[in-house]
Amino acid sequence: MAPEYKLIYWPQLPGRAEFIRLLFEEANVPYNDTGKGSSEEAVPAVTGIISPNKPPGSSNAPVLAPPVLQHGNLVLNQTPNILLYLAPRLGLGPADGDGLFRLNGIVLTLFDGFVDEVHDTHHPIAVQDYYENQKDEARRRSKAFREERLPKFMAFAQHLLEADSSGGGPWLYGGQLTYADLVLFQCIDGTLYAFPKTMKQLKESGKYDGVFRLYEAVKKRPRIAEYLASERRAKYSTGIWRHYPELEED
Amino acid sequence: MAPEYKLIYWPQLPGRAEFIRLLFEEANVPYNDTGKGSSEEAVPAVTGIISPNKPPGSSNAPVLAPPVLQHGNLVLNQTPNILLYLAPRLGLGPADGDGLFRLNGIVLTLFDGFVDEVHDTHHPIAVQDYYENQKDEARRRSKAFREERLPKFMAFAQHLLEADSSGGGPWLYGGQLTYADLVLFQCIDGTLYAFPKTMKQLKESGKYDGVFRLYEAVKKRPRIAEYLASERRAKYSTGIWRHYPELEED
Repeated sequence: MAPEYKLIYWPQLPGRAEFIRLLFEEANVPYNDTGKGSSEEAVPAVTGIISPNKPPGSSNAPVLAPPVLQHGNLVLNQTPNILLYLAPRLGLGPADGDGLFRLNGIVLTLFDGFVDEVHDTHHPIAVQDYYENQKDEARRRSKAFREERLPKFMAFAQHLLEADSSGGGPWLYGGQLTYADLVLFQCIDGTLYAFPKTMKQLKESGKYDGVFRLYEAVKKRPRIAEYLASERRAKYSTGIWRHYPELEED
Repeated sequence: MAPEYKLIYWPQLPGRAEFIRLLFEEANVPYNDTGKGSSEEAVPAVTGIISPNKPPGSSNAPVLAPPVLQHGNLVLNQTPNILLYLAPRLGLGPADGDGLFRLNGIVLTLFDGFVDEVHDTHHPIAVQDYYENQKDEARRRSKAFREERLPKFMAFAQHLLEADSSGGGPWLYGGQLTYADLVLFQCIDGTLYAFPKTMKQLKESGKYDGVFRLYEAVKKRPRIAEYLASERRAKYSTGIWRHYPELEED
């Protein structure tokens, strides 16, 4: 039987799709992932859905960028939106009520800091231009990120963990694992790859122990550990989280 | 009777709070707005809620940045999240089902292009530093924004309008006004202020007629027109949408 869910993304990159994959993997729900096929298959799957020439129809209006999730007739874009749709269906968030809005607020803030701002460290001037053509600006932006922004977002996550009065476990919300924890895991994992020296210093400061504890706790969950060790987990390369040693030099 | 909703934001700026205000104004629902009080009242209201020293409690965990919406015991942050919460309650989005996820995907994409990327045109290197200290980079980033990014996001909105097969009116989704239309209105209004020459060229190209038609249609709605003419509508100044003439020069 074909999987119920189809994930459309560029091939061979963790990227924004990685957040969605982690939900499916933790929930043990099968999904069709174009990003795991060959480039010959994956690239047209993406360009077909973001093309301005897509046939009209409000249920399949063009989207600006992948990842895209297809579920039945529904076509969804924007990663935090896809996660919000999936979380209650996969048992990784409350089915209704105010809790899901609290989680969505947390997730959108994590994306601001650990996805969008990390991306802009290597592309501060022009998304569509090469890194090499904005390298000096990338160094300046990275310095501001390492010294001001990253500690700010780390402190935000740490404060959330300290403020949650529900106790029980290392999790962000309500004393049990939710999709927000999987999001924070990926944020930290990607940032450890991109800025290893900086993250080592932040860890050794002892100010963010809750964040690193959560990171390790997610990493050790059986299905996540199995996934991370598998070939399904794409290697970091030239996506959002890139490692340029010069961006950690002053 | 005190309003049911409280909006917490910096004083005297449209900013991200403006999206939230437009929903309340169109729905004719009263709201308490700290941004409309004096700075002596508004600033502590904001800093009190974003402070890392807030007392613990999962329902009022610290938030990173305003705007914040208080509704009963619920404290929400992140503008697209607040809009998603409010839209069905204010009659500006479907109460359930897939439609709200389609709208959220549209709104998140509009925020990427017309809020976050517009902000970065004047702050490409460091959020916390002055514009004057990143002026050269701002010129380069603005050029890329004007030539590549802005037309891309304008085309996205235009394609959505053309793809909606439900007909009836100038709206983005389902043939009736939703909160996504109010969001697109504010995106265009802010960008017209920041980049008037560029937007004039885009309008004259005739490629985005649907977008400008929607903009005018929202502007003429009686409650929106009344609001825009009132003193409640803050003037643009040094927020997200800033007008620096040099950022439209090549």
